[in-house]
Amino acid sequence: MTDFKYSFIAGTLSQLGDRYLRTGYKERQYGICEIAKKMSEYNLVDGIELHYRGNETETEISELKEILEQNSLHVSCVNTWLYGQIKWSNGSFTSRDQKTNQEARKHTMDAIDYARKLNAECVGLWLGQDGHDYAFQADYSLQWKQMLEAMRFIADEASDIKIALEPKKCEPRNHLVLDTTYTALLMCLEADRNNLGLTLDLGHALYAGEAMGKSITLCDHYNRLFNIHINDNRRNWDDDMIFGSIHLMEHLEAVYLLKKLKYKDYVSVDIFPYRENQFEAVAESIQYFKVFNDIIDLIGMQKIAEIIASGNPIEFMKLLREHVFDKGK
Amino acid sequence: MTDFKYSFIAGTLSQLGDRYLRTGYKERQYGICEIAKKMSEYNLVDGIELHYRGNETETEISELKEILEQNSLHVSCVNTWLYGQIKWSNGSFTSRDQKTNQEARKHTMDAIDYARKLNAECVGLWLGQDGHDYAFQADYSLQWKQMLEAMRFIADEASDIKIALEPKKCEPRNHLVLDTTYTALLMCLEADRNNLGLTLDLGHALYAGEAMGKSITLCDHYNRLFNIHINDNRRNWDDDMIFGSIHLMEHLEAVYLLKKLKYKDYVSVDIFPYRENQFEAVAESIQYFKVFNDIIDLIGMQKIAEIIASGNPIEFMKLLREHVFDKGK
Amino acid sequence: MTDFKYSFIAGTLSQLGDRYLRTGYKERQYGICEIAKKMSEYNLVDGIELHYRGNETETEISELKEILEQNSLHVSCVNTWLYGQIKWSNGSFTSRDQKTNQEARKHTMDAIDYARKLNAECVGLWLGQDGHDYAFQADYSLQWKQMLEAMRFIADEASDIKIALEPKKCEPRNHLVLDTTYTALLMCLEADRNNLGLTLDLGHALYAGEAMGKSITLCDHYNRLFNIHINDNRRNWDDDMIFGSIHLMEHLEAVYLLKKLKYKDYVSVDIFPYRENQFEAVAESIQYFKVFNDIIDLIGMQKIAEIIASGNPIEFMKLLREHVFDKGK
Amino acid sequence: MTDFKYSFIAGTLSQLGDRYLRTGYKERQYGICEIAKKMSEYNLVDGIELHYRGNETETEISELKEILEQNSLHVSCVNTWLYGQIKWSNGSFTSRDQKTNQEARKHTMDAIDYARKLNAECVGLWLGQDGHDYAFQADYSLQWKQMLEAMRFIADEASDIKIALEPKKCEPRNHLVLDTTYTALLMCLEADRNNLGLTLDLGHALYAGEAMGKSITLCDHYNRLFNIHINDNRRNWDDDMIFGSIHLMEHLEAVYLLKKLKYKDYVSVDIFPYRENQFEAVAESIQYFKVFNDIIDLIGMQKIAEIIASGNPIEFMKLLREHVFDKGK
Repeated sequence: MTDFKYSFIAGTLSQLGDRYLRTGYKERQYGICEIAKKMSEYNLVDGIELHYRGNETETEISELKEILEQNSLHVSCVNTWLYGQIKWSNGSFTSRDQKTNQEARKHTMDAIDYARKLNAECVGLWLGQDGHDYAFQADYSLQWKQMLEAMRFIADEASDIKIALEPKKCEPRNHLVLDTTYTALLMCLEADRNNLGLTLDLGHALYAGEAMGKSITLCDHYNRLFNIHINDNRRNWDDDMIFGSIHLMEHLEAVYLLKKLKYKDYVSVDIFPYRENQFEAVAESIQYFKVFNDIIDLIGMQKIAEIIASGNPIEFMKLLREHVFDKGK
Repeated sequence: MTDFKYSFIAGTLSQLGDRYLRTGYKERQYGICEIAKKMSEYNLVDGIELHYRGNETETEISELKEILEQNSLHVSCVNTWLYGQIKWSNGSFTSRDQKTNQEARKHTMDAIDYARKLNAECVGLWLGQDGHDYAFQADYSLQWKQMLEAMRFIADEASDIKIALEPKKCEPRNHLVLDTTYTALLMCLEADRNNLGLTLDLGHALYAGEAMGKSITLCDHYNRLFNIHINDNRRNWDDDMIFGSIHLMEHLEAVYLLKKLKYKDYVSVDIFPYRENQFEAVAESIQYFKVFNDIIDLIGMQKIAEIIASGNPIEFMKLLREHVFDKGK
Repeated sequence: MTDFKYSFIAGTLSQLGDRYLRTGYKERQYGICEIAKKMSEYNLVDGIELHYRGNETETEISELKEILEQNSLHVSCVNTWLYGQIKWSNGSFTSRDQKTNQEARKHTMDAIDYARKLNAECVGLWLGQDGHDYAFQADYSLQWKQMLEAMRFIADEASDIKIALEPKKCEPRNHLVLDTTYTALLMCLEADRNNLGLTLDLGHALYAGEAMGKSITLCDHYNRLFNIHINDNRRNWDDDMIFGSIHLMEHLEAVYLLKKLKYKDYVSVDIFPYRENQFEAVAESIQYFKVFNDIIDLIGMQKIAEIIASGNPIEFMKLLREHVFDKGK
Repeated sequence: MTDFKYSFIAGTLSQLGDRYLRTGYKERQYGICEIAKKMSEYNLVDGIELHYRGNETETEISELKEILEQNSLHVSCVNTWLYGQIKWSNGSFTSRDQKTNQEARKHTMDAIDYARKLNAECVGLWLGQDGHDYAFQADYSLQWKQMLEAMRFIADEASDIKIALEPKKCEPRNHLVLDTTYTALLMCLEADRNNLGLTLDLGHALYAGEAMGKSITLCDHYNRLFNIHINDNRRNWDDDMIFGSIHLMEHLEAVYLLKKLKYKDYVSVDIFPYRENQFEAVAESIQYFKVFNDIIDLIGMQKIAEIIASGNPIEFMKLLREHVFDKGK
């Protein structure tokens, strides 16, 4: 029985606000070192996924490295923060302002350095401000070319690091340049750099109307599956809920496919637990992923392959019921 | 441990087509008596939900009654067919043609007679052609008044029968008059007849963006919960899939609430198994409902009430994992 | 040719942030008096819609009154702020904490006093934190009863003021108690107070999958249409975009119906212009509403009534093309 | 002032049914020659888009050719019918049954011959049964490879014909292999055949959550834009409504982009006018496209390019209002 390497996005365990309550939902705001320590106590995580904000001091980095070593946490991925400041509000790499484009590249190269210092193998690019809101606002052709050129530049400059694009349909812009898994794969194929791939956020795939299982499969088909984010939602928005809190069957299938495709990188929890105990929420997400993993093993990879070959999904439902749910009796 | 009474819509086990394959997906088309017999063999159903088409002969009715008795099946509900013929294509009760309105009332009264003959206590009205497709097409005020008047007429004429309105957001019309549970409840409150209530199709609630649990609760709050339809979907359309094939938590909550509210009427499978073995698909839907029922008992009604009172949904996820999923280990 | 009274929500012209850029998208943050003055210069607005935060000093109120008088602005509505502070994060009137319930009532009564001081006839209740996020979290029955009781209390205490409930499907909670127009109407019917009605946000109706025209019609049918919010969206989220930036026909129909039903209250712009010039965005929203009003007059109320009676929506498209679009030739 | 070449899908003007009214909504069913003649009388169409069913006799083909010549109609595209018979119900090219795969290829090659006889330059492949409904039903990897191999085979066998894949998110299967524009482009890039491209159905793009303008732009970017289908919908389903009956701005932008990119192929109406006069509905769709074309010319290509370069969408709304809507005054 194989298990996965688990990680979690640390930043969203600190403070969370939204457009109606911008000052935040948490009474107490944890620092990144505290978060690493507290989350480690659950004995569930192997890694931590960080954001590079640009104001990290060497002292802070040293302290963080020490804490991570003490808790045996690898940095699974370093994300850029090309959306969290007003200067990016009309785009980073696809801003019409060339100075902003250059600044975005600079920030990314700095994030890559930060990743190197922390021995991370992956840098994540979720570009939430690169897109448009209204018709007659964006030059789609120009945006695509700007993005393509920037990705090639970054991939070439950091050939020792995996660059993981994280597509998302919308939010905060009403439409993002890299909206679906398939759009991001197109970008990768056209950019034609081996170290350029994807962070596949299962929730993003779900609410974009993708078939999660197919998205996983095609990322793997093109050797571009660098990172997995897990969470759950109600299929019309990126709710970033606890993994397993809404869906069952498609999540089980996703776990089956990651096992089948021998996915070796991290499974990282990406949730926004506004009103929940954030540590419990991350822990439960991983527990559900692990228990889904157990269920796949229990039913059996070979048996599932046979069911899929038969094309009769009722067989899986029956086996799941008999092996798992009927135990409840 | 209490269980529910189960039924199923018989008509959709016969033949199924869609706008692209109108001639139907089934090689062999079963008659209603065959369907009753075959479904009975699973020992899962207590009732059968029928459609009244208007061409049923006395001989056919007698034969059907005999078969139902032999198989101990009650008729849980008789549905009208006010959508399946070209004459209803611009509405039944809300058609602008008064002759059509009268014909719709006549058809409904005939369906009620048919229900009486079959000892059904409930007649279902799903009015899929009453609505509109485009802006500047419907007089919403007139439609509401026509519907209201018709409902009062029918409820008064058949005071011995429960009349169950089944709301649905859209399809086949782009928008239906009775689109949500709350719209149908408004109609019931304004009509002010005790025998006028709802068939709550859990899939309709789900894809209309309702909180299923709240829809159940408010139907009960107004004493209008006459019939439950179960199925599953991907939340953007009435996919009529096998119950439990997509969602878990909200379905568990729905089962919990039906138990808590001591729902005594039928839980009826309403699916469109185009490419599946239709009998297996219905059986598995009921098996999932039953096993969800078991799970609620296993965790315990009192315990769940406490979790809800605490407002911490992670507790439920934990208990479900420990009581059910971990058994898979 | 009749026109409407126009207003706008002032608060969202000040600063706007979201979960990714909480510090805000605006370089310069305007005060409420500045906003009133700047917006008045467009000669488009008759009123202003305010939020009561609870920290307004008498001096500030006096200054605001003076500015409003100088600019001939009426206060069309005062909204409560029962979502913008951490204390409301698990609900206001439906919080499980009784102290919070009482505080919500107190805040609302204070908002009503503030409304009286500013001669507003309407107080708006959008209760964005009253709802739930997960299954097994909310007691839907209790929430409904708590809400009902609070609404009766407030309506009774402020019989000189119109209390306008503003339903919305979700956000910030994943599901709100008052989710649809029809749910809010149910609440009004059960509460049975004449001064309890609705703010109908056309965008909320649109993204909840309602037929806007029917929502307007049924609010009017029950004499509950107290306030209209206008904006636009892509039908899956409350994008709060400039009115008219996405949809045409249904908005034209909405304007037609408001004219037909002789709606006399305010049409108030409720948008979140994150990256746009906020004053221009409000002005253009009103300009589009006005020009849609002109178009309805141009085609003619009587003519439109005839088209609707005929049930042929192509006729309206033709007339619109001939009277308006062909002028472009 | 340039105009486009217009066409229409003839098949859906004959008879239309759905899962509830399979026998059809039309009292009178027109033959294909009648449809060609009647639609020609509007003087709006340059082409006709046909479906190849497989039972067309040489006599029928001759008669059709004659009618088309008499009415100066070119065949803009011939579509296969790999969804309308029970044998395709579990897929055509991606069926697990190899005989079915071969039959699908044979049907397509026959359709290509039919296209050659009718001097059509384009054959359309909309593969509505190739996909899946449930989790644990499809081997996504195998489906992709089967599709890829079939596309290469067909493209190679018919190097004189453009093969246009028409992606669609779902229906009749709950998920299709070629679900989005970007998925279909991936298939084209991997297949690497110049005569393999797309039919971009603007409604499919819209309800899949794509930005239509970006979809057009990227199809053009890869030289894969072979055919355009127009219609409208409410963004959650392929409603196939009259073009322009819901949306304005994004459609105007689509027309602008097709002009800018010098699109030379057909703009073809693809609607399902169940309850409308089907000829009027097609004519009005084209009239709206033409009038949107006029509006773009009126505002001016250069001016629009400047607005897009400025990134301020309010400017377009203002110009549209001043040039078009204010004429209504």
